[in-house]
Amino acid sequence: MASGEDDLIARYFRPLATDPGALGLTDDAALLTPSGHDIVVTTDAIVEGVHFLPDDPPDTLARKALRVNLSDLAAKGAEPAGFVLTLALREAREAWLAPFARALGEDTAAFRCPLLGGDTVSTPGPLMISVTAFGRVPPGRMVHRHGAKPGDRIAVTGTIGDAALGLRMLKGQIEDQVIDAPSRDLLIERYRVPQPRNALATAIREHASAAMDVSDGLAGDLAKLCAASGVSATIEVRAVPLSGTVALLLDQYYGFEREVLSGGDDYEILCTIPENRWDSFAAAAHRAGVPVAAIGRVEAGAAPPRFLDSSGRPVKLERLSYSHF
Amino acid sequence: MASGEDDLIARYFRPLATDPGALGLTDDAALLTPSGHDIVVTTDAIVEGVHFLPDDPPDTLARKALRVNLSDLAAKGAEPAGFVLTLALREAREAWLAPFARALGEDTAAFRCPLLGGDTVSTPGPLMISVTAFGRVPPGRMVHRHGAKPGDRIAVTGTIGDAALGLRMLKGQIEDQVIDAPSRDLLIERYRVPQPRNALATAIREHASAAMDVSDGLAGDLAKLCAASGVSATIEVRAVPLSGTVALLLDQYYGFEREVLSGGDDYEILCTIPENRWDSFAAAAHRAGVPVAAIGRVEAGAAPPRFLDSSGRPVKLERLSYSHF
Repeated sequence: MASGEDDLIARYFRPLATDPGALGLTDDAALLTPSGHDIVVTTDAIVEGVHFLPDDPPDTLARKALRVNLSDLAAKGAEPAGFVLTLALREAREAWLAPFARALGEDTAAFRCPLLGGDTVSTPGPLMISVTAFGRVPPGRMVHRHGAKPGDRIAVTGTIGDAALGLRMLKGQIEDQVIDAPSRDLLIERYRVPQPRNALATAIREHASAAMDVSDGLAGDLAKLCAASGVSATIEVRAVPLSGTVALLLDQYYGFEREVLSGGDDYEILCTIPENRWDSFAAAAHRAGVPVAAIGRVEAGAAPPRFLDSSGRPVKLERLSYSHF
Repeated sequence: MASGEDDLIARYFRPLATDPGALGLTDDAALLTPSGHDIVVTTDAIVEGVHFLPDDPPDTLARKALRVNLSDLAAKGAEPAGFVLTLALREAREAWLAPFARALGEDTAAFRCPLLGGDTVSTPGPLMISVTAFGRVPPGRMVHRHGAKPGDRIAVTGTIGDAALGLRMLKGQIEDQVIDAPSRDLLIERYRVPQPRNALATAIREHASAAMDVSDGLAGDLAKLCAASGVSATIEVRAVPLSGTVALLLDQYYGFEREVLSGGDDYEILCTIPENRWDSFAAAAHRAGVPVAAIGRVEAGAAPPRFLDSSGRPVKLERLSYSHF
């Protein structure tokens, strides 16, 4: 008597719904037990042809859809508590669903973020994957975009720009012979499978005055953080951490500096740390195994953040970040 | 410096984000304060050409997207706490967004379910509106699909079948002259704008042994409730509450009985009430202004629910409910 939709859910997604609150995906709703915490809620959708390419493999799509949300939870200082998944599919194909569900299951286990529920619908159009994720923070302890104060150090995790150049690789906008195949694959992997910094959540919660994840581009996201905090900022562009491959490409391609600063899809954490907290934060990040780099300072005022090159001249950016409209 | 996407959010959706937890839609995430309650989470998406027609007006789409989720909260005995909205749009048109946001704002106020956050993305394909809604219940008091016991009365709110026949009207499958224009409009309105039974949430929580909302068709949804509860059921078809218009159409169109029982989009509540709770439940429903009708009994066993006609013969249903795949 079960419909195709019920079969699909039972076959591919019920094995992932191990949390008691998921009710085996057999109810209208899921149950989230706050256990004395505040609940942080974030939602991000990815659309075929907009956020990913039609030939991106299903396992990377599963990971990306979940991880872009996990990245938000990390930036808010929250521990993952679970997520719901909305999947709009043209057809229910085993060859797509099996690797999608397998990879999603691996990530739910690795990040301890169980599947709580969802909705699977058919669409005549592009594939769309929408995730709403939940995190727990001690009451009143969510880290906001507002809260940055003049004098705070500005820090960023990992390296910036890999994903944006990975997307250019996939689109054939960078000649293959410029870099070796493993380096090329690394950039593409950074675009397809973000590495959210959930290991840093506690350190962010304990030390950051403000934080957000870098999803639309470092320049634009910093501008948002500054606007929410009512401050300005100065960034030393040469302090922005780059992978070896990105540094090499910057040497060869004029203009890629801007791509790095406003390209997006980094899913690193941008945060502001009061000076007297910096050493503790850096030590906590080291213990968590997350590289962090100080890239500038928060300043008083309402001016847009300035990005200074090695000569101290402002870098001009035509667009700060990606916009859908 | 704000992008088109930021402008769109600020202009149309920030006015709806009145809850402090929404943080003015200027952060990566929203904050949901459980206040000692469990959080009930439900998610439902509607897709153009699948769940609604391309020429359905934007104000009705806003209401439908939110209300199908509010209906789930009501059936779980939960009070609305807020929702996040994912909107996939081909273009950002004032003529569509303004009435959409205005109607959504009216519903968030009427149902006390504030907008907490969301994601607005572009799509080359059909419009899609995905809502994840949150409700609060006292700890351990969410009403499940499981819990129905043999001997319980089966009840349903409102009337069944109006929306399914409204959709047939819109598709031109029922001749216009069969019913008068106001009756026709009422059926279409039931399809386009569900009336979720949130006024009944407390009564459900206090009296129902199991509950769900009727979204995919009474027959199929009852089968799901029975399967989750490990029981069977018998329904008297003549006891299923019908509007005057649906009753008239049943007289004229052979086969519409099945459409009523398995058509879907009703967004009424189906629940099971222990016999010794019936009077209290009926009184509470009356006080809440929600019509309820007893339509059958829960029975022991694993057989699919039976629908008996006025002669006591089982009504044969080809399909129990809508399935996407």
